This record gives sequence, structure tokens and C-alpha cells, in this order.
Amino acid sequence: MIGGGRGAFIGAVHRIAAQMDGQAELVAGAFSSDPGRSRASGLDLFIAPGRTYGTYASMAKAESAMPAGKRLDFVVIVTPNDHHFGPAKLFLESGFNVVCDKPATFSLAEAKALGRIVTRTKKIFVLTHNYTGNAMVKQARDLVREGRLGSIRKVIVEYPQGWLSTKLEASGQKQASWRTDPKRSGAGGAAGDIGTHAENLAHFITGRRIDSLCADLTSFVKGRRLDDDGNVLLRFKGGAKGVLHFSQVCIGDENNLNIRVYGDKAALEWHQEHPNELTVKYGDRPREIWRRGNGYLSPGAARVTRIPPGHPEGYLEAFGNIYREAFRAIAAEVAGKKPPRDVDFPTIDDGVEGMTFIETVVKSARLGARWVRFPQP
Amino acid sequence: MIGGGRGAFIGAVHRIAAQMDGQAELVAGAFSSDPGRSRASGLDLFIAPGRTYGTYASMAKAESAMPAGKRLDFVVIVTPNDHHFGPAKLFLESGFNVVCDKPATFSLAEAKALGRIVTRTKKIFVLTHNYTGNAMVKQARDLVREGRLGSIRKVIVEYPQGWLSTKLEASGQKQASWRTDPKRSGAGGAAGDIGTHAENLAHFITGRRIDSLCADLTSFVKGRRLDDDGNVLLRFKGGAKGVLHFSQVCIGDENNLNIRVYGDKAALEWHQEHPNELTVKYGDRPREIWRRGNGYLSPGAARVTRIPPGHPEGYLEAFGNIYREAFRAIAAEVAGKKPPRDVDFPTIDDGVEGMTFIETVVKSARLGARWVRFPQP
Amino acid sequence: MIGGGRGAFIGAVHRIAAQMDGQAELVAGAFSSDPGRSRASGLDLFIAPGRTYGTYASMAKAESAMPAGKRLDFVVIVTPNDHHFGPAKLFLESGFNVVCDKPATFSLAEAKALGRIVTRTKKIFVLTHNYTGNAMVKQARDLVREGRLGSIRKVIVEYPQGWLSTKLEASGQKQASWRTDPKRSGAGGAAGDIGTHAENLAHFITGRRIDSLCADLTSFVKGRRLDDDGNVLLRFKGGAKGVLHFSQVCIGDENNLNIRVYGDKAALEWHQEHPNELTVKYGDRPREIWRRGNGYLSPGAARVTRIPPGHPEGYLEAFGNIYREAFRAIAAEVAGKKPPRDVDFPTIDDGVEGMTFIETVVKSARLGARWVRFPQP
Amino acid sequence: MIGGGRGAFIGAVHRIAAQMDGQAELVAGAFSSDPGRSRASGLDLFIAPGRTYGTYASMAKAESAMPAGKRLDFVVIVTPNDHHFGPAKLFLESGFNVVCDKPATFSLAEAKALGRIVTRTKKIFVLTHNYTGNAMVKQARDLVREGRLGSIRKVIVEYPQGWLSTKLEASGQKQASWRTDPKRSGAGGAAGDIGTHAENLAHFITGRRIDSLCADLTSFVKGRRLDDDGNVLLRFKGGAKGVLHFSQVCIGDENNLNIRVYGDKAALEWHQEHPNELTVKYGDRPREIWRRGNGYLSPGAARVTRIPPGHPEGYLEAFGNIYREAFRAIAAEVAGKKPPRDVDFPTIDDGVEGMTFIETVVKSARLGARWVRFPQP
Repeated sequence: MIGGGRGAFIGAVHRIAAQMDGQAELVAGAFSSDPGRSRASGLDLFIAPGRTYGTYASMAKAESAMPAGKRLDFVVIVTPNDHHFGPAKLFLESGFNVVCDKPATFSLAEAKALGRIVTRTKKIFVLTHNYTGNAMVKQARDLVREGRLGSIRKVIVEYPQGWLSTKLEASGQKQASWRTDPKRSGAGGAAGDIGTHAENLAHFITGRRIDSLCADLTSFVKGRRLDDDGNVLLRFKGGAKGVLHFSQVCIGDENNLNIRVYGDKAALEWHQEHPNELTVKYGDRPREIWRRGNGYLSPGAARVTRIPPGHPEGYLEAFGNIYREAFRAIAAEVAGKKPPRDVDFPTIDDGVEGMTFIETVVKSARLGARWVRFPQP
Repeated sequence: MIGGGRGAFIGAVHRIAAQMDGQAELVAGAFSSDPGRSRASGLDLFIAPGRTYGTYASMAKAESAMPAGKRLDFVVIVTPNDHHFGPAKLFLESGFNVVCDKPATFSLAEAKALGRIVTRTKKIFVLTHNYTGNAMVKQARDLVREGRLGSIRKVIVEYPQGWLSTKLEASGQKQASWRTDPKRSGAGGAAGDIGTHAENLAHFITGRRIDSLCADLTSFVKGRRLDDDGNVLLRFKGGAKGVLHFSQVCIGDENNLNIRVYGDKAALEWHQEHPNELTVKYGDRPREIWRRGNGYLSPGAARVTRIPPGHPEGYLEAFGNIYREAFRAIAAEVAGKKPPRDVDFPTIDDGVEGMTFIETVVKSARLGARWVRFPQP
Repeated sequence: MIGGGRGAFIGAVHRIAAQMDGQAELVAGAFSSDPGRSRASGLDLFIAPGRTYGTYASMAKAESAMPAGKRLDFVVIVTPNDHHFGPAKLFLESGFNVVCDKPATFSLAEAKALGRIVTRTKKIFVLTHNYTGNAMVKQARDLVREGRLGSIRKVIVEYPQGWLSTKLEASGQKQASWRTDPKRSGAGGAAGDIGTHAENLAHFITGRRIDSLCADLTSFVKGRRLDDDGNVLLRFKGGAKGVLHFSQVCIGDENNLNIRVYGDKAALEWHQEHPNELTVKYGDRPREIWRRGNGYLSPGAARVTRIPPGHPEGYLEAFGNIYREAFRAIAAEVAGKKPPRDVDFPTIDDGVEGMTFIETVVKSARLGARWVRFPQP
Repeated sequence: MIGGGRGAFIGAVHRIAAQMDGQAELVAGAFSSDPGRSRASGLDLFIAPGRTYGTYASMAKAESAMPAGKRLDFVVIVTPNDHHFGPAKLFLESGFNVVCDKPATFSLAEAKALGRIVTRTKKIFVLTHNYTGNAMVKQARDLVREGRLGSIRKVIVEYPQGWLSTKLEASGQKQASWRTDPKRSGAGGAAGDIGTHAENLAHFITGRRIDSLCADLTSFVKGRRLDDDGNVLLRFKGGAKGVLHFSQVCIGDENNLNIRVYGDKAALEWHQEHPNELTVKYGDRPREIWRRGNGYLSPGAARVTRIPPGHPEGYLEAFGNIYREAFRAIAAEVAGKKPPRDVDFPTIDDGVEGMTFIETVVKSARLGARWVRFPQP
């Protein structure tokens, strides 16, 4: 693990998620750019002392030198955005598979470069857009794929949070500090932190690409240097229209990611805060509530379930599902085999897409919220 | 009543709403432009035969000639949009108070002209933007007014319906036919029919005026001549931002009008399909669910309640509340007095605002969804 | 109308409900046992002075003497329970149809006597168990009738309210006073006031009769003479089991009437505070949400709808539906015809059932919450 | 781990829950009474071959012989009910701490005997009544403790499931088979499997003991030998009344555990399928929705939270919280210290209470659903 030391948030989430199903074990790490902090974090985590490193470079070197059975099967990168590309590049080129938190990189250029490295090294790169790990999100995608919604007309995806309603970064709170700092976060604030999740979710479920967008970004909190709120109109290839809005100043909202997709035959609706349900709506018959764990679900949704219906799975389980699917590919890679065809996790392509989203949204906003084309890959 | 004969929808709603509290009685009408149909409708409604008229002009003439105690106290206009201005003008100028369905007129120019007539005649003009009759909507407005939300940052208002997902107008269905006909509806389709409700609701609750907007309108159903879907970005005077979207092709949605308003101190949320509740959210304490009929509500919300908490009031009661408040003013007017200061119903000002919204949205859309200023009154 | 003068609650509800569809008009009344108050109430209600009576007896006499076209078509009784039987008997025997609030009478003996009078006079007697007027309750019954639930196994019906959590009757509040007074209410407190609604709802939807019950009644508020809370185990004829509980001291609950019915094929669930929805649950496929006003509803549910789906109907509309169905029978009766076969409102049979429920519950409780047989008609 | 081999359900849940926070590691087990299956399961779970045992007795012997730093810190028992007492006794007497699935034992007599063994050995015994691990359940208890609800009047706790609506045990399904077999489950079917959870939840939140109860148990599925449904009236010491019902034939319900507690000042409501929220209701002010992870929660609720508000935690996290609290005690015990005073997990006392519940409910039902005293400890 790169990053995720004391005081971090997402590192602990990755550790729980990766180890949830007893398929992986954290054995080494460079947990902080401060070597003392890295060591202390290693002790907290029961890491063998020789495998806590002061820098990711020394870690890559030392682990590469270990025998195949002992060295890492994959590395997890959970640093702020400005420190994704460096370790990802190095570990991929050193022959390791990589799991990386989103957004993929600091800039689109980096993401594209990373994509070329992944292609060249033939290693596995997993981007933890965790919400697509939810069973009912996979079911939603499968309903669209099998044509139950018909032709898609409209997508409404929203991600309001409220935790940055005040100038929390001024208090030195670690999560707030780097997320509001353009040198660490990149061009987008809320756009990068959560807007990309909304974009990814819409893309995952509908399979439609954005054709152009018009984004109005705002920094509501005085003195904040990055956007903390955004409202975006979308036009998709194929004619669907959309609304995407996100915020970190929607006071009282917690992690209120929601999506509605309307086709000409049916519609669906999913709410992250009640993730075990998926509503399907029709023009001429009763609405349906599809629920996780039931026998009627698609294979892709059924596979990522641990416990019976009615026993709620949550955020950590969805996150764990990204790892669970990744492990199917990693295990094959380690064994020198092809990954299963139905393996299902976000890749560097999603990363490039996400970075394109950030840069396009920021570009539109800087032009005064004008329509701009969404560059195609 | 002008319009509202056999086959109409909103006429019956007005009759129930106006008579709900035993304060008014339907005594005369020109129920259809077809005199035979008007007569037949009058019989259905137990109107005295002499007071069912073939045209609104003959009605205005005959009723004007009646003695004060017997003639109409007010007239209700429930015709399609292209037939609002004519009867409204005539009845106002003939000395009658007028209640009119929304949108106010066929065009903004008509609405402004009507505004001048109202001013000149000093008669009461009531526009039935019925959703603002809901007790919990009034409570929402009062929470904003008393500063509980602090400075308003963001407004999300949405009105998806699904009943026009197919080309229903081709079947001759009366409601669909005139609403999709630019000669009867005006410049806006869904924008006029329901977009104006969304705009009015946001304005009513927040008190903020739109400064500029960017609207993407679509006609999803092939051959439809007016918009059946719209996504609009809003900028309010004072710095708040907003998203307003509406649709009549959101299949499976019924009458899903919702609003969320976020300030820097608190936020609120109201859902028309569950109108007896209002959610208030804070950054640092539990959410609250305010419910109709309770002792803790504001005077304006408490006044428009008929039955105890937990006995749901619905659409018709909210509609009736518009009438109930209007009757306070009309009773005063008839008695030659000033209306009570706290009387609370939509007026021609709301009508001008709504027509401005329609024309501005259509203008923006025609320019390719570009930002346009929202003309101020 | 008998009762329902100034200060009353349910009288106003009946007036709105009865007149909602423009099919009836209040023309006469004995609104209070205090003649001055009756007169004043008559003036409030725009009743012709000659038709406001000081007593129901004088009213029956005077109205009987009027010519057929002018006299009452039916009388509505909205007095406390101890004054149901007297006027009901008199008006039935004077040749009038009767609509009466629930519970039917003060005692079971009275209810049975009234049943005999109804049979003998052949007049129409309508008991306003209003919750069965809800469209989705009718749909629930129709799903059971058509066998969709299979054999019924379990019924859970609950009616918690909180408005009597304190000793409100000590303040002189009129509604609390008579409801907690055994001389006016009868043997049951909450059992009669709301327990009967729960029993009626379960009976209406399932069509199953109670075979025996075990009831634990409590008066939680010190000094209260009637039960304000009750928990009841049910055994139905045919083998289903049930739980019925009600309370007026469930603080914070408003009018939280809910029912769940489980069969061996499917289950259903309805919540009075969200009355426009009905949930249907299966063992092997997604849940369904059936909603008022849609084309897929049964004829009995479709008939009692005024406005399109998504425009919520509430308590008053459900109450109005009892009247609407009653008017189909009354109109036939007045015209000397047979009522339509599918006419659908509660009758004196439901009244006898309700009074049987009250007396059986009280009997069980007095025996220390022992099982007692539920007498069959 | 004792039990939990291939084909088991709850064993896997315990493994995820125990290891979720990186504080424990599964190192040894007797996973099945079939030695070959135990070995195979050990391999699945990456257990060192020498520490997979054929019987729990050989495991106790071998592990006891290991040096302190290497041998087990605690053992987890996840066998059917008839195999709880034997290994619990042996491991406790061999000096190991024990975590055991609920209900504690096969019979009340065994539970009491186990209680004496716990007292005598001074080892830690943890009973995984997992639902009390939910943060918002702890908050509910703390609200009651601090007097916010006032004097408790009524408790409604319900646990309907539907998965045994058909005779699933006839198919050989493992979970259904032992749960419906009196030789493996004990005297209660659904009463023991889920009724005990409902009882435990009510007891945990309210702190009130049952004084007497009246239980109507049913086996709805033909040929089933244990109850699959139960309706229970409760009387608590101190005067509160209650309703407790549970079922495994409520078709379409999944794991619908819910509780409502009403005091004379306020009430609360919690739903297991939406576990991150707690509703608090008052007589005179808006309802409140308390949500997991927020700063306003009690220390006991705040301590058992891993991720920020709005990122749902579910069943596994709640289960993990039982372990997390247990580890605070076990770590102290292993270090020879006293456990922290605020340590918070179910113990053998809860186990005795649960077994008392099962036997009392069964006794009441066998007497024809008569009231029986609830024996006090």
C-alpha cells in the first residue's frame, strides 16, 4: 500500500475492502511520505518491520527483488491525486499489478500516459470507482444492456454532500486540506472528488458516452480555490439528455449519490444511501423494487453478494466487490492465465474518461458555462 | 366558470377546490365554446338553466346586468392557454374578480397587458399555482423568510412526469392534444405546463429572482411540436445557483414535483407526492421532519389545514387552499373593504413571472442552450 | 345533519366529503343538543333558517312533512356514540336513509337492534368506516379476492396515535372529553375509537372473520377511565393468525394506521399516511408498488379516483368515496330502483361486527387478557 | 473456529466480522464434525495444515499445549445450537475466551450451566446478538438511558422473514434443515432463530425485563415440526406493555427486524433494513432523524463507526462491532488487565435471557397461548 498512514481516510477503507473476503493480506507499505510516520503506521498494521518502507521507490525496488512467491501480487495507491501517477508508473513498470484510488491521476495528460503504460506493461490496473461495485448498480446496468429500458432518453445523476459547507480546510482537517488544494487535487475540486463518481456511475449503467456538456462551477465558501459545487447539462451520443449536479456545500446532505435513467420503455432509479434496492418504473404496470441477494437477479449482480437479502450490505461491501472482481483477474495474471471474460471492475479507460470529465467541466466553466465537446478516446 | 365542460380535467378540480370549504357555490358558466356542450355541462352541474351561457361574452353581459346580491362574486377561467386573456380582460373590465388557471396567458405580452388591466380595474386576480397552496410549502417559505436556512446557495427543483412518453395526442386525448399544440399552448410545451410550476415553487419558497438561465429543451416523441423535456441551469440574483428540470416523458413518473433548497445554515426538502412532510437538514444536528397540522407550524402554514396531523391532505386540499385564501380577499372586496394583510395567493405578478420564464427558456433553447438574462419586471 | 355544530371535528369532515363531488347539498340540521348553538351553527353553514332544528326529533317530524322533492334524501349522524341509536332509529322509521359515523352505536345490543330496524324499514344505512374508501384499500381487497395472495396466513394491523399521551380531557378539549368518557363512548376507549377501524380494515381486505381473540387493554394516563392502548392476538376462521394493536398514547405518532396481509403466494402492505401506494411482495420476484389512478387497477379501485396518478388523494377523498358509493345506492333508492350490484360501502353489518369487536376485546381484557370466542352473527 | 465449514452460512459472516478491523486472524479450526470436510475447509481458508482439527476436543487439547504467544486468544463457536454447550464448556475450562453464536445453547438448563462455568473460569464469553452492534441501536439505548423518552409505555418489536414460506427443509437446504429440526435447534423454531433477536433488541434498548408473556406459536408449513411464526403479548416489569411478533413465513419479507419504543416524553423507531437511521418522535416538535457517523451521537454509538455519514454500514459492520467491542475485553484479558468499563457486547446473561424467552414462549404456546410468568434470573 502506498499512502493510507495515520490520519488518512480512504486507506483504511481499502484495507477493509481488500481483505474482506479473506483473499488478500496487507504485507508491505510506504504509508507516508514522512518515513517516521510510515514506520509507525506499519506497526499499527502489524506489517513485518522489514516491509515498511520510507518511500514508494525503495518499496518498488525491494519488493521487485523478492522471490515470486513472497513478493507483492499487487500494490494499492491511496495517496492524494498528485501522487498517483508516479507510483503507478513505477510499479507497473516494475512488473506489479496496481489498484489505484480515483480520480486516476492529477491531469488528463497523466491519465493518458498511464493508459499507454498499462497497455505496454500488460499489467492489471484497477481504478476503485467503488459505487459501481454495488450489486444493484450492476443489476441496473444489466437491465439497460438487455434492453428493458428501451432507448435511453434522460439521465439524472446527482451527488450532493455537505461536509465542506464551512471552510473546514482552514482548521487543518487533512481530508479537506488536500481536496481543496489545486496543487494536490488537480483542476477540479468537488468535480474531481465526487463529480467523477457521478459521471462514472452514469456511464457504467447506461453505456452512453457524453457528447458535449455545459458546466456551471462555483466556489461558495469564501477563499476556497477549487469548485465546491457544480451543475452540468449533458448531451449524450445517441440523443439522450442529462443533468449532473454535485456539491460539497449541500448542508445536511451526507453522501447522497443518486441516479435515475429513463428510457422509452422503462426507467430505473438507485440511491446510494439505500443501496440494496433498485426501483424500476413502467408506463403501464406497477413499479418494481428489485432487492439485493434475490434469486431473480442477473449473474453479474448475483456474484457480488455475500449475505442473504434483507441483511444490508453497504459501502465497504461495494468497495470490496471491486477488489473481489479485481482478484479474479489478478489471480489469473499471477497464474499466467487469461482473466475470466466476465470480470467486472473499472480500468484505466474509466480513469481517462474521468479525467476528461474533470478537464472538460473546468473548461466549460471557465468559458462562462458554455457548451463544449466532450473529447472522445 | 369559463371552460371546464364535459371531457375537461382541470375544471372539475377547480369546482371541488372552490367549493370544498362551503364558502362558494358554482352558479353560472360558459362551459364550452360549443353552446350545446356548454348547456349539457350546465345540466350535469345542476346550474340553473338561465345561467348556462353559450359564450363568455354573453355571460359577462348577462351577469353584469344582475343585481349585486345575485350576480357572480368572481369568475373562474379554466380554458386552454389561448383563451385566458380574452375572458380575463372582459370580466375584469366588467367589474368581476377573476380566478385563472396557469400559465396566466398565451404569451408574455398578454400577461403584461393583463397586469395593467388588473392594476387599472383594481379587481382581484388569482392565478392557481396550486402547489404553493400546500401547508408544508408555506412552512418552507416561512423557514426561509425567518432566516433559518441562512443565505441561500443552491436550489434544485424538478418536475418529471411520464404521461406523454408516447404520442398520446395522436389518439385525440383532449389533455394531450391542446398541451402539445403551439397554437393553443403557446411557446412552451412541458415548459409551460409544468416548468412554470417548478419555477413558481422555487420563487415562492426562496423569494429569489432568477438572474439568468441556460435551457436545453427537447421533443423526444417524434413529431411532437413542442418541448416535452427540459433541463435548465439557473443563476439567481444574490448568488445562488440552481438546477430546474422537467419532463413529460420520464416514463413511470407520475407527478414527481420536488424541491431542495440549501442555505449556509440549513437546508429543506419537499416532495409533492408526499406533501404532508417537510424535511429540514442541518450540518450539526439531526434532521427534522416537520408535518402538517402540528402546533409548531407557522401561522401561514397552520391556517391552511383542515384535518389533524396524520390524516393526509392532498392535491385537492392544496388547490382548495388557493381558493380559501382568495376568498379572504374576495369577501373583503365584495364588502368594500381592504383584504387582510397576510392574504396569501398567487397573483398576476406570478403570472408575468411564469410567462417570462416560458419565453426565456424557449429563447435560450433556440439559441442552442445559451445563457440568457431573465428580464426583470 | 345531526350533530356537527361549532367545536365539533367529524361533522366538518362529513360535510366536505359528502359535498365533494357536487352530488349532495346540506340543507337541514339539528347541529347541537343546545338549540342556540344549533341555530348559530346553521347560520355558519348557510342553512335556510326554517331548516335548522333544536332537536333531531323536531327535525324528523318537520322533514317528514315536506313534499318528496324538497325533503331530505338522507340524514347524517355525527354525534358522540351515545347519540347514534336514537336518531338513526327515528329517521329510518320516518322513511329516511341514514349515514352514521362509527362505531355504529353505544353498545352491541343497540347495534343489533338497529340492524333489525334497517332490515324492517328497507332503508339504506351507511357506516362511515372511511379508510375502506381508499382506492388502494379496495385494490388490496380485490387482490385477495382474486386469489393473488393465496391462502391467508397472517395479518398485522396497527393503529398507533399519540394525541392522548397526556390527560388532554382535563383541559376540556371536546374531542378528548367525550372519547374518554364511558357514558358517551361506551365500553371501549381507543378500542372503540380506532381499534374498530383496524378491525374493519382487516376484515374488509381479507374477508376473514375473527374466530377468537386475546386482548390486553391499558389506560396509561393516570385517571383515564377507558383504555388508551390495546394489544390483541387474533385467530381467524380458516387458520390465519393475526396481531392487532392500537394506541392513543404512542407519542409522536399521528394517524399511523397500517396493515400487512401475508398469504402463501404473496403479501401486501398499506399505510394510511401514504395512502396512494400499495406494496405487493412475492417470494421469487421483485416487489411491486401499485399506485392510485393507474390503468392497471381493478374496477372497484379505479372507480373511486378523482385525479390522475401522482396527485395525492388523502383522507377527505377517501371519506368522500364512502359517500360517492353511498349516493349510488341512495339515488337508486330515491328513484325507486335497486342499487347497483357492485355498490361498495360499509353497512350495519360492519357496525354489528365493530360493536362485537369492542365488547369482545373489553371482555377479554377484563378476564385478564384471556382468549375469548368472537361471537358470530 | 468450531463449525463454519463448507456449506455453512454464519461461519463466513463471523470470519468477515472478526477480521474486518485487522485485529484478529483465523489461525485454527475444527470446521466440521466430518474430519475430511474440516480439512478441506481449512485449506479453503489458508489455515496452516497442522491447525485444522478433526474434532473440537482434539483442537482444545492441541491448542492448550501451545505456548502463550502462539495459541489461540479466543475460539468462535458457529455450530448448530445442539453443539454450542459442549465446545463452549471445554474451551472455557481449557482457559480460552469464547465467542458463540446465538441462541446460547440448546436448552435453558445448558445456558444456566454455562453461566456458572463462565463465572468459575473467569474467561470472557461473547454472544453474537449482532443487531445490538448497530451504531444506531446503541444510540437508541443511550437515548432511553439518559431519560429522553421518559417512562417507557409500549414496545413493538417485530421480525418477519419469508424464506421458510415453503417446505425448504425438504430440499435438503442446510440452513433450513437444522433450523426446523427440534433435535438440533431446541424447543423453538423461529422463536429461537429470530424471536430471540427481537427479545434481545427490546431488552438492550429499553433495559426493561419481561414480567410475563402470552405467546401464540404456529407451524404454517405442513409437516414442519417447529414453529415458523409467533405472536407474543408482553408485559414488562415497571408497567410497560409490548407486542413481539416474528415469522419465517411472511412471504416477501427478507430480514425485516423493526422496533418502536414509546415513552411518555418521546418515542423512537429503528429498522434493521435501513440501519443507519434512527427516528425520534415527540408530541410537540418535529420528528428527528439521527444518522450514523455524525458528531452529535453518544460515545457508545460514535465508537462503533468506521466510515463517514451517508456511506452506509450494514449487517457485517454491525456484526464486526460485536467483535470490536469483544476485542477490547479480550485484549485486556490476554494482557492480564481488567477490561474497559464501557465495553459493550452481549454476554452469557443475554444467553440465559434468550433461552428463558424460548422456553417461556414455548410453554405459553403449549398451554394454549396463556399468560405465563417470565422467570427472573
